[in-house]
Order: sequence, then C-alpha cells, then structure tokens
Amino acid sequence: MTKRAPRRTDGLSKELIVKAAAEILDEGGEAALTFRALTARLSTGYGAIYHHVANKSDLLAAATDDVIARVLSDVVVDAEPREALRTVALGLFDAIDAHPWVGAQLSREPWRPALLDIYESIGGRLARLDVPDRALFDAAGALVNYVLGVAGQNAANARLLAADEADRTAFLTSVSDRWASLDPAQYPFVHKAATQLREHDDRQQFLAGVDIFLAGIATLHQTPYS
Amino acid sequence: MTKRAPRRTDGLSKELIVKAAAEILDEGGEAALTFRALTARLSTGYGAIYHHVANKSDLLAAATDDVIARVLSDVVVDAEPREALRTVALGLFDAIDAHPWVGAQLSREPWRPALLDIYESIGGRLARLDVPDRALFDAAGALVNYVLGVAGQNAANARLLAADEADRTAFLTSVSDRWASLDPAQYPFVHKAATQLREHDDRQQFLAGVDIFLAGIATLHQTPYS
Repeated sequence: MTKRAPRRTDGLSKELIVKAAAEILDEGGEAALTFRALTARLSTGYGAIYHHVANKSDLLAAATDDVIARVLSDVVVDAEPREALRTVALGLFDAIDAHPWVGAQLSREPWRPALLDIYESIGGRLARLDVPDRALFDAAGALVNYVLGVAGQNAANARLLAADEADRTAFLTSVSDRWASLDPAQYPFVHKAATQLREHDDRQQFLAGVDIFLAGIATLHQTPYS
Repeated sequence: MTKRAPRRTDGLSKELIVKAAAEILDEGGEAALTFRALTARLSTGYGAIYHHVANKSDLLAAATDDVIARVLSDVVVDAEPREALRTVALGLFDAIDAHPWVGAQLSREPWRPALLDIYESIGGRLARLDVPDRALFDAAGALVNYVLGVAGQNAANARLLAADEADRTAFLTSVSDRWASLDPAQYPFVHKAATQLREHDDRQQFLAGVDIFLAGIATLHQTPYS
C-alpha cells in the first residue's frame, strides 16, 4: 500500500501555482510543465489548479509576466534614462539567461503584459532622450529586438553548448584555437580576435552593444531620418 | 507491383546533394531532412550519398555554408564599409527569413566557415571604420549578435505567427487594436505606437537598428571605452 502525501485543503492561490510552475520550468524546461507535475509539487488535485488557471499556455504566460514584472520593478522610476535603459537591458538579459523559457514565451504572445511592459519601459525612456517622434517607434523596436534577440540566443547557446562554466571555457578555448590557426591573410580579423574570443564575457559584450546602440540613439536628433 | 524511379548511375556530386538537402529543409524544416528523403529526391541509394556526406549534421552545415557564402559574395569587395555592412546585414536577414534552418545552424557549429565568414566580413569592415582596436571585438560581436539574433527571431515569428502576408496583417491588426485600447496614462508609449505597430515593416525596422548601431560605432573613436 503506497502512502500518499496528504491533500492540501487550505486555499491555493494563483500566485502559489505560478511560483510552482516557474520552478518546474527552470528545472526541466517547457516539456516538464504538466498539470500532473503541478499537482504533485503542490500536493493538490487537478480541480484546485483548474480553478485558477485555464491551461498550460495561461500558466506559461503568467509565469513570464511575473519574471518580467520583477525585472522592471527593480529599475528606479526616475533614474537617468540612459542608465535606466542599461539596467533594464541587463536585467532582461540575466532573467532570460536564468529562465530560458521566458524568451520563447515573450514572442509567442506579444499582447501580454510582459512584452507591453518591456516596450513601455524602453520606448518611454527613449522618448525622454529626445529621440524624434518619427524615429521613436523604430528605435524602440530595434532596441527591444536587440535585447530579446541576443538574450534569447545567449540562453539557447548556454543550453546547447555549455551546461556549466567549465564546459563554456573548454568550448571557447577550442573555437579560439581554430580561429588562431586560420590563415591571417584570408581571415585577418578573425585570426587577430582569437584571444579575445577565448577571454570574452557574453554579458559584457551584450552591454557593449547596448552602449553602442545608445550612442547611436543620441545622434538621431541631429540627423535626418527617412 | 510498384514501379520504381530508375536508379541514377551518373556521378552524384556533393554540390547536388547539398542543393537537394537545402530544398528539403526549405520545404519541411530540419525534421524533414532524412537520408531516406534525400535518396528519394535524388533517385539514388544510401551508398552514393554516404560517399559524399558523413551524416545529417555535416549536410546541414554544408547547406548553411552554401547559403551564407552566396550572401557574402554578393557584396562588392571594395564598397564603402558602411554601405557594405548594411548590405551584409540585410542579406543575412533575408537569407535567414527565406531559410529559417540557417539561423539555428549558425550558432550550433560556430567554427564552420559560415560563421567565420560572417565575422570576417563584419569585423574587417568595422576595422576600416576606425573603430579602436580595444573596442573592435566587442563591436563586431554585438553587431553579429544583433543581426543573427533579430533575424533568427524574425524567422521564428514568421513560422509561429504568420504563415503568409494576410495572416501577418491580421495578426498585427489584432495586436495593434489591443495596444490602442490600453490606458494612455499607464501606457503612453505603447498606446501612441499602436498605429505604427500595425503599419511597420520588420525588415525596415531591422535596418533602422543597423543604422542606429552604425551611428553609435562612429562615436567609438571619440569616446573613452573601458
């Protein structure tokens, strides 16, 4: 006779369910998130969960909204816009690195609070940097795309190529050795960059890109834009 | 009695095999690429194919190298570096849009010619724009990451959300309606951007991002970089 965990009879909040879902997603990715796994983790029945969430897609979206809301609320509201944009960008990069399922979900349901709040946080601050109206939407779209595109790719690479820091170092060393062995006449840039490739930090390179982007943004009010 | 297509007895080149593989990938994605599908399309046997390619991963890499080589060879070698960078970026965006499997493959085997040639093409031209040595590697990495990250995300969205142009319009209209209905006090930027969202062109917005990035690059030789 197997002994079952006692059924929870106390009220189960949506907040608790979403928290458990996020833990399951972090541990096993999207495939691991099932209502069966949730009932086991929360020691409850299907009914109690369906009372709060309609389906898996609802749950994924709520967990994503939650992660993004925490990133954005960490930014001081009246911080200098350029500093605030760097903080938002890095916060999103780190959150997607820690929770790779967030990146995929954001583009799947772009009308959810998570993506709306990202656009508002980035677009609103660009407006305060005197980006001309006609250039503002494209500038915001490009910066959001940079942040989510690069963060998503970084998270995918991390899963694919390097399960831990030792794997990453071994991987970068092996690619760097290949770069170094290329003919410098045919590959002058790549050959020379081999050492930097081995030593570079993805997060730092991501931030260098944000800074280049912000420096470019600063020129928009000076130049004609068609 | 089923009638078989006659076996090919003429020499089968690796070039022909890679071309057939690319067609299968374009039609059905990575899952469709099997040696069985290849033998059927080329009216040949397994042995003839294994004579030229070791496995599926070899085939995917060769097909990717092929697509990228064509994009990069379209750029005039001594074109003005800024114009050349725009052409490379747009060429890669279009190629990954047309062949979504290329984007995934590029980050999977980053020591293959495809990614090396992209880095050389972009890094070499940034060097000609007087980007200081100490900033060159990060600038090249950030621009490559922008191009591949945004192009990859665009291709994924295209598959996920909009199989054709009518789907895309309907999708954007519905998201735009949601943006327009938001409270302008809470979402001033998003509310105002609703119309532009509906009318925007992803390729044009991608290029606006490249231009902002290049404008930022132009400031690097003026500013200290740590």
